[in-house]
Amino acid sequence: MNSYGTLFKVTLYGESHQPSIGVIIDGMPPGIVIDEETIHADLAQRKPGATGTTTRHEDDAFVITAGVFNGRSTGSPIHLMIENKNIRSKDYEHLRQQPRPGHADFVAGIKYQGFQDYRGGGRFSGRLTAALVAAGSFAKMFTPCQITHAITRIGTLTDMSKLDTYLREIAEQGDSVGGIVELKVSGLPVGLGEPFFQKLDAELAKMLFSVPAVKGVEFGTGFAGVNMMGSEFNDVMVNGYGKTKTNHSGGVTGGLSNGNDLIIRVFVKPPSSISKPQDTYDDETKAVKPLVVGGRHDVAIVRRIGIVLENVVAIVLADMYLMDKAYHG
Amino acid sequence: MNSYGTLFKVTLYGESHQPSIGVIIDGMPPGIVIDEETIHADLAQRKPGATGTTTRHEDDAFVITAGVFNGRSTGSPIHLMIENKNIRSKDYEHLRQQPRPGHADFVAGIKYQGFQDYRGGGRFSGRLTAALVAAGSFAKMFTPCQITHAITRIGTLTDMSKLDTYLREIAEQGDSVGGIVELKVSGLPVGLGEPFFQKLDAELAKMLFSVPAVKGVEFGTGFAGVNMMGSEFNDVMVNGYGKTKTNHSGGVTGGLSNGNDLIIRVFVKPPSSISKPQDTYDDETKAVKPLVVGGRHDVAIVRRIGIVLENVVAIVLADMYLMDKAYHG
Amino acid sequence: MNSYGTLFKVTLYGESHQPSIGVIIDGMPPGIVIDEETIHADLAQRKPGATGTTTRHEDDAFVITAGVFNGRSTGSPIHLMIENKNIRSKDYEHLRQQPRPGHADFVAGIKYQGFQDYRGGGRFSGRLTAALVAAGSFAKMFTPCQITHAITRIGTLTDMSKLDTYLREIAEQGDSVGGIVELKVSGLPVGLGEPFFQKLDAELAKMLFSVPAVKGVEFGTGFAGVNMMGSEFNDVMVNGYGKTKTNHSGGVTGGLSNGNDLIIRVFVKPPSSISKPQDTYDDETKAVKPLVVGGRHDVAIVRRIGIVLENVVAIVLADMYLMDKAYHG
Amino acid sequence: MNSYGTLFKVTLYGESHQPSIGVIIDGMPPGIVIDEETIHADLAQRKPGATGTTTRHEDDAFVITAGVFNGRSTGSPIHLMIENKNIRSKDYEHLRQQPRPGHADFVAGIKYQGFQDYRGGGRFSGRLTAALVAAGSFAKMFTPCQITHAITRIGTLTDMSKLDTYLREIAEQGDSVGGIVELKVSGLPVGLGEPFFQKLDAELAKMLFSVPAVKGVEFGTGFAGVNMMGSEFNDVMVNGYGKTKTNHSGGVTGGLSNGNDLIIRVFVKPPSSISKPQDTYDDETKAVKPLVVGGRHDVAIVRRIGIVLENVVAIVLADMYLMDKAYHG
Repeated sequence: MNSYGTLFKVTLYGESHQPSIGVIIDGMPPGIVIDEETIHADLAQRKPGATGTTTRHEDDAFVITAGVFNGRSTGSPIHLMIENKNIRSKDYEHLRQQPRPGHADFVAGIKYQGFQDYRGGGRFSGRLTAALVAAGSFAKMFTPCQITHAITRIGTLTDMSKLDTYLREIAEQGDSVGGIVELKVSGLPVGLGEPFFQKLDAELAKMLFSVPAVKGVEFGTGFAGVNMMGSEFNDVMVNGYGKTKTNHSGGVTGGLSNGNDLIIRVFVKPPSSISKPQDTYDDETKAVKPLVVGGRHDVAIVRRIGIVLENVVAIVLADMYLMDKAYHG
Repeated sequence: MNSYGTLFKVTLYGESHQPSIGVIIDGMPPGIVIDEETIHADLAQRKPGATGTTTRHEDDAFVITAGVFNGRSTGSPIHLMIENKNIRSKDYEHLRQQPRPGHADFVAGIKYQGFQDYRGGGRFSGRLTAALVAAGSFAKMFTPCQITHAITRIGTLTDMSKLDTYLREIAEQGDSVGGIVELKVSGLPVGLGEPFFQKLDAELAKMLFSVPAVKGVEFGTGFAGVNMMGSEFNDVMVNGYGKTKTNHSGGVTGGLSNGNDLIIRVFVKPPSSISKPQDTYDDETKAVKPLVVGGRHDVAIVRRIGIVLENVVAIVLADMYLMDKAYHG
Repeated sequence: MNSYGTLFKVTLYGESHQPSIGVIIDGMPPGIVIDEETIHADLAQRKPGATGTTTRHEDDAFVITAGVFNGRSTGSPIHLMIENKNIRSKDYEHLRQQPRPGHADFVAGIKYQGFQDYRGGGRFSGRLTAALVAAGSFAKMFTPCQITHAITRIGTLTDMSKLDTYLREIAEQGDSVGGIVELKVSGLPVGLGEPFFQKLDAELAKMLFSVPAVKGVEFGTGFAGVNMMGSEFNDVMVNGYGKTKTNHSGGVTGGLSNGNDLIIRVFVKPPSSISKPQDTYDDETKAVKPLVVGGRHDVAIVRRIGIVLENVVAIVLADMYLMDKAYHG
Repeated sequence: MNSYGTLFKVTLYGESHQPSIGVIIDGMPPGIVIDEETIHADLAQRKPGATGTTTRHEDDAFVITAGVFNGRSTGSPIHLMIENKNIRSKDYEHLRQQPRPGHADFVAGIKYQGFQDYRGGGRFSGRLTAALVAAGSFAKMFTPCQITHAITRIGTLTDMSKLDTYLREIAEQGDSVGGIVELKVSGLPVGLGEPFFQKLDAELAKMLFSVPAVKGVEFGTGFAGVNMMGSEFNDVMVNGYGKTKTNHSGGVTGGLSNGNDLIIRVFVKPPSSISKPQDTYDDETKAVKPLVVGGRHDVAIVRRIGIVLENVVAIVLADMYLMDKAYHG
């Protein structure tokens, strides 16, 4: 259940306040140069620090304990581990009885019958995305494509030059905002994906929704396409390689990559943890009453999530690239 | 690759103009009453006929050739088969050289190296959704929840009372429109889903994107939530069963069902097949030139897709319901 | 649960007295010539008729209803179906209360809570192996190797020239015998298999034990190797392609094909259904009392099982061959 | 590829001379008491030390870095890691050019194109079985059954009281021997397993063959059953719980547990690494010439393998037990 992929398989473990989080990458082809700097650079992108992100220090120093030899992949599973340091478990102790609004506290308690490690969000912590990012770094080392992202909206703001001021105001209110991230993938071969049930868009959506805080995914023109006629929406093919004049389909036709850039837009909800007091049910008094969630919070997780989204996309593409090779190689 | 599910596993086969399409349902618990009328009723919902849908007659008469005995599931795989009758293969022969805009003709040719059965869209035909619908009917026979849908938009139209006139006009122009379908699931237990990678929303998105023509999926408030502050977006829990005052999250927290209705919105693009002439690349002349796609077309496939979306949702929920039983049963 | 394989995936359905049995072959590369005569020839090998096999007539006429176009695989799932004709359900009705010794009657009743189709052995019937054989025929159409088998023992008999007399005597006693089949695979590339958990020998053993009546599997010298020292058992490599002087390992080292013939020996138990009266528990009287199992029986199923074993081996090798291509192609 | 299981999923990583080996256990039900002493005791059983086992010191100290909280499983994946200490890499350096007979050196080189970590056998080292053992310890913590084993043969020896003398003699010759281990599982519910392709015996065989050095697996009477008539081989059922007078089937009927003890016999080949000089192909001179394999060797790995076999059996049973609960719970 905590694994993804057919030939490039990622297995994720860890909880926020346990000794470590980590990931096993199974199916990495042998002989690929493992550039640890790439992994460090990717992890650095999701680190807190900019305006609107938490001041909490996350140490993402990792170790690779298997699957790399003489700087290259061996073909055996790779194990990458990140220790959980800088843990302040006390911050969370008092939240057990009053589930935080928007958090998994309540559902986790039901699902795991009270045995979950509730500290710091446990299995549901955004912390886990560090291991996801690292897994994606490996995927990018051998998959022939370029993945980029841009933040197109943060809250009601579209002009990113005013971002710092905007976020500082929200922080002062003890509140948070969401945003929209647009992903672009170039250079992908035609025909990746399977008509059922491993459509390229279906698998990408699955992995994007696996990233905490994602609440919407659309391809190409997406929901806005409801205002278009078929004659307008249809992308006109202009050469023998599948290149189209427009890209309303976002690079996917019939669940397969069609030779154009993948264009995906992702909605990231406002972080649940805010400083403002919020109402929630209190299991002791059986009444709804205000709760103040202490600790250090992200005002806009969307600022840090881009690399996570990029790298889960990379995981999907690596898997599909290897599957394609099995039938065409 | 053509299978979905862990404990409730659906395997889909068939191409539009081959002798049959069909589905194997593996993991149906034994002893469930198999009500064939439910399957017929579900299949009838996706049949053509209403304004804006094709006048093509699809015979969805099915046979069950395994897994049902004395009106109940035996616990062995169920095989349901639908013959492909009423096939007019000649309609499609002339399209091989000029890929239809928006269709999988080109990508399928690359992926399958020209060996695909291109007639009627082959593996990419909407016809396959009949087997998906039937699989979902079985899922609904034992999964404790109610699934409904509503069409909230067709093209630019929001007032559904004017639908017939609206679609007739578009049909006369030889064009097509998309739409938005809202799904609602009530009565689901708390805690279905896995934090990674089988989040409830992730799996639902995967299966919804597996339905041809789907280009966007959002939960709860979805993309519109970008205009909200965290303090507004967070759903306030009001009782010990997880019930919340609002439902911006669409019934999913941390990838798990949270005790509220699932609310999912799906964007369905305009059908690619239209009567209007459209430009596309011609492989013989190596030039872009107009193409007329003959045959009978749907002006608004969104009118027929609701039951398909409902039933792929049912497939996901059946699988998660059984997985939940393994750990709590 | 009724599927096998990662890239070449076989899904089996059917019960003995339901309308049909069948199989979906998913992952067949596109463009492979589908020779139906090969399938017929393979199915003919497992047909009853020779001395020691049942006189029951099994009609193995099959239809392919998807995945083949113009005589070649399309790349979409192939569906092959065999109708169950010549069914005499009355033979079995009286067995419900008294489980036949050696049969799955009792365990199936517990597992499926009494809802299984018990007629003719239902899901546990040897009949299902026809679909397995057909699946293996497809595997052999593109996997580069030759698979053969020889029966080395039937009961206490090693001289196969005396087989007809030997089996006739056992038939007259209303009894049955088992046997040993030796499989040989030549021409396989080096390196198929994964150290954990898809070792070549592990997967082959799994599939061989999936064939009803198999109760033992050994590779190369097998159990007899207990009498050998390591210096004798170790196969000495004699050239740069992995060729060894002896083949005590049976062609597998570290779970990977090593460039030598695969040698596998399989023990097939005596058929459970015999004409002789046998004691078994009677659920009505709660006492052990004799039972006579009517119908037509195989004295030595081992005579018909060779092609089934060959073809499940082919299924495993096809899957591993495709996986190997993903990493080396 | 390095994962096993459907609901109780084990993912294994590590190579002999990399920083660590380890295992992720996914699907452990929440709230199970995690007794680390059991794991230590199991690991101690496979440790070297007795006569006929290597004098090499293996430190199997493990850490659990995820999935356990307050002494119980949390329901999230468990990560257990064992550091590789006491590594003497120099012992192996000179073996690259001359593959050791019976070892995976040659096949690994082909499969991984020379990039494998060849030190100490790398991925093919028996060292990996420590992680397998630990995974099985978790399986035993919640699966209702008792698993035991007995060594019935070591080389030509059947009287185990003479074992030390026997093995000392073989050690003095610089040679090694194999053996036969009999496994017994009691207390298992009826009906575990699936007719295709997850038969209980098929899955057990797969996992037993996943243990290095296993070359044969048989159930119940096994190959010796070739001398029996069906009337003798059939186990007579004597009560309503499936209990049989004899157990020639080894506790499995139709691929399902039948209420009797599982009886499995496993052939373990003689260790490949011996002190005696052995011929093998030399890639430099392109000739066959003698090789001396230095280092410390096991004369009879069969002495240490019992707990490994027990625990892979436990992994299979845990998985099937959870699957059974999904349909009956």
